[in-house]
Amino acid sequence: MTDSTAERAAMQRALALAATAGVPLGPNPRVGCVLLTPDGDVVAEGFHRGAGTPHAEADALARAGTAARGTTAVVTLEPCNHTGRTGPCAQALLAAGVARVVFAQADPTPVAAGGADTLRAAGVDVKGGLLAEESAHLNRAWTFGVAHDRPLVTWKFATTLDGRSAAADGTSRWVSGPASRLDTHRLRGECDTMLVGTSTAVIDDPQLTVRGADDQPLAHQPLRAVMGLRDLPADLRVLDDSAPSLRLLTRDPAAALAELFALGRRHVFLEGGPRLAAAFLRAGLVDEVVTYVAPMLLGAGRSSVADLGITTIAGALHLEPTDVTVLGSGAETNVRLTMTPRYDAVVTAHPGDAARVALREDH
Amino acid sequence: MTDSTAERAAMQRALALAATAGVPLGPNPRVGCVLLTPDGDVVAEGFHRGAGTPHAEADALARAGTAARGTTAVVTLEPCNHTGRTGPCAQALLAAGVARVVFAQADPTPVAAGGADTLRAAGVDVKGGLLAEESAHLNRAWTFGVAHDRPLVTWKFATTLDGRSAAADGTSRWVSGPASRLDTHRLRGECDTMLVGTSTAVIDDPQLTVRGADDQPLAHQPLRAVMGLRDLPADLRVLDDSAPSLRLLTRDPAAALAELFALGRRHVFLEGGPRLAAAFLRAGLVDEVVTYVAPMLLGAGRSSVADLGITTIAGALHLEPTDVTVLGSGAETNVRLTMTPRYDAVVTAHPGDAARVALREDH
Repeated sequence: MTDSTAERAAMQRALALAATAGVPLGPNPRVGCVLLTPDGDVVAEGFHRGAGTPHAEADALARAGTAARGTTAVVTLEPCNHTGRTGPCAQALLAAGVARVVFAQADPTPVAAGGADTLRAAGVDVKGGLLAEESAHLNRAWTFGVAHDRPLVTWKFATTLDGRSAAADGTSRWVSGPASRLDTHRLRGECDTMLVGTSTAVIDDPQLTVRGADDQPLAHQPLRAVMGLRDLPADLRVLDDSAPSLRLLTRDPAAALAELFALGRRHVFLEGGPRLAAAFLRAGLVDEVVTYVAPMLLGAGRSSVADLGITTIAGALHLEPTDVTVLGSGAETNVRLTMTPRYDAVVTAHPGDAARVALREDH
Repeated sequence: MTDSTAERAAMQRALALAATAGVPLGPNPRVGCVLLTPDGDVVAEGFHRGAGTPHAEADALARAGTAARGTTAVVTLEPCNHTGRTGPCAQALLAAGVARVVFAQADPTPVAAGGADTLRAAGVDVKGGLLAEESAHLNRAWTFGVAHDRPLVTWKFATTLDGRSAAADGTSRWVSGPASRLDTHRLRGECDTMLVGTSTAVIDDPQLTVRGADDQPLAHQPLRAVMGLRDLPADLRVLDDSAPSLRLLTRDPAAALAELFALGRRHVFLEGGPRLAAAFLRAGLVDEVVTYVAPMLLGAGRSSVADLGITTIAGALHLEPTDVTVLGSGAETNVRLTMTPRYDAVVTAHPGDAARVALREDH
């Protein structure tokens, strides 16, 4: 039996392999696989490179050949049990004579799940849950999509201390500092779709490409989606040939997300403007909020979010911070808050006393 | 000669003694004094307790009696050289036969300075600057007042992520979380004056008392000043007998500060509302900004600051953070930013490139 230290190291390697596939893989999860001898030596490695290419297990098995017999397959996701564009991995592992399977995240998809049971029924020693959280994090958007049938939505906005995203004359370069702008490009690169409204596309005319620290465009560029019914001039930068673009002829956030999901999109980076953000928030369709707070006052100008239909403090939309990070230095110091909206938070205000925020349990 | 380790320890003790005087001491600095034998043993300690009471040196000398002869006086502020309500400390130290004087902060006041020279001329060994920064920090507002002839002004505001200090119906309890509210009481207690506009006094009807962690009023209560020309109902909480109150019948920030300074006030805690804050900012009369950012969205409601006369992003008022602290937890997590306004910041935006903020040197 392979010892657990070797299996844990192999799982970390499999996670790293999965991550090399780049972000994101469209509708498919990122998966890595390492085959170990009973002594814990690596026989072969593999990872999934995207729809239509071999799954991680098949990739590793092909590299191992007959040496796969008697090995332990360490894989970041429960081996699939269904025939899609490639055959089921559970069968491939059995055919290759793999003796033991250690996986991280259980497969959450209804059609593909059951691989572990199939393997066990055939006499393979199966263990699940090793570094499961790390694997789920790696495929956060994919896992969300399986559960919710729509893409994960991250709304990002930069704001002054007084809640302005642009000055009275519409100028907004720059509210956030250079460290925040670089950070935004990093976050954009982790998504597969950037989404703006037609107003933002026309008024701000952003190119919405992802650039690295050297200010050069990255090889991988997310889809640039523009939603709304307004006509767009053909010479907008968001429609240029630097990256793919998509028009979504709807004002309905749910309809836009359904269309993007059907196109294999799993993580939408919502970048504005205030009315589009408000529409998504009112529909409960923002899953994560990333705010860059700039130590700057404008006293007037464009609000970072439009009317939310909230009229009293007890109706405020609360968000729960998962991370607070200081970026940059000096007068260019920004504070980044990463937050989860609590659409179901019930706030009871006791006048003259501390407010008590009662949060319903998530699942 | 007393060794420097003993003198440093004595200076730290003198600073601690000075701080026990409570905050603030009106127009006087907080000063502590420790008398040491040449071997570094403590002969006597003293500190200043407020206008009309003995200075720290005189307090320590009185306790030492004839034992003061030949000692080293370790004092947090350069001994004064002038006769006010008490005699000059330099002369008192000479009369007592003190052999050496070690002080922290040099006396910045034109009338009182020169104590070190007087002592040196009389043959006393004098050393200045030991823990000078700590002493200046202890008397931050007093030092500021000597240099600027007006009180130090700290503007505090709590804001939602989208820059609102109240909802559309005017409700604002609570934007900030319980940890921030407790922190605000701590900061209020470090000032000698809380200042609001008549509109805030009438609309929000705050009591503006300082309460501790047990929600009980502290023994020391700052002055509650209300400025503006609007008539105030007599039953406002800010006018009750829980703490002293003051009407400032002006809308001019400089005039209000001049009156408060003449009354011996050295640190004003500006608490609102948005128009009053804007008036102080436009006049360049806010020296420090403390902002509590609450992870909450309102989408509408009262802005945290009114019009500043800024129309374009290049004219934004930049602030330089000196501290960023996370307070509270969960959905009640707040981020406190402490900042210094840069009224003279020149911002040059390079389109498509990082903004470069050129800051002129202070003083």
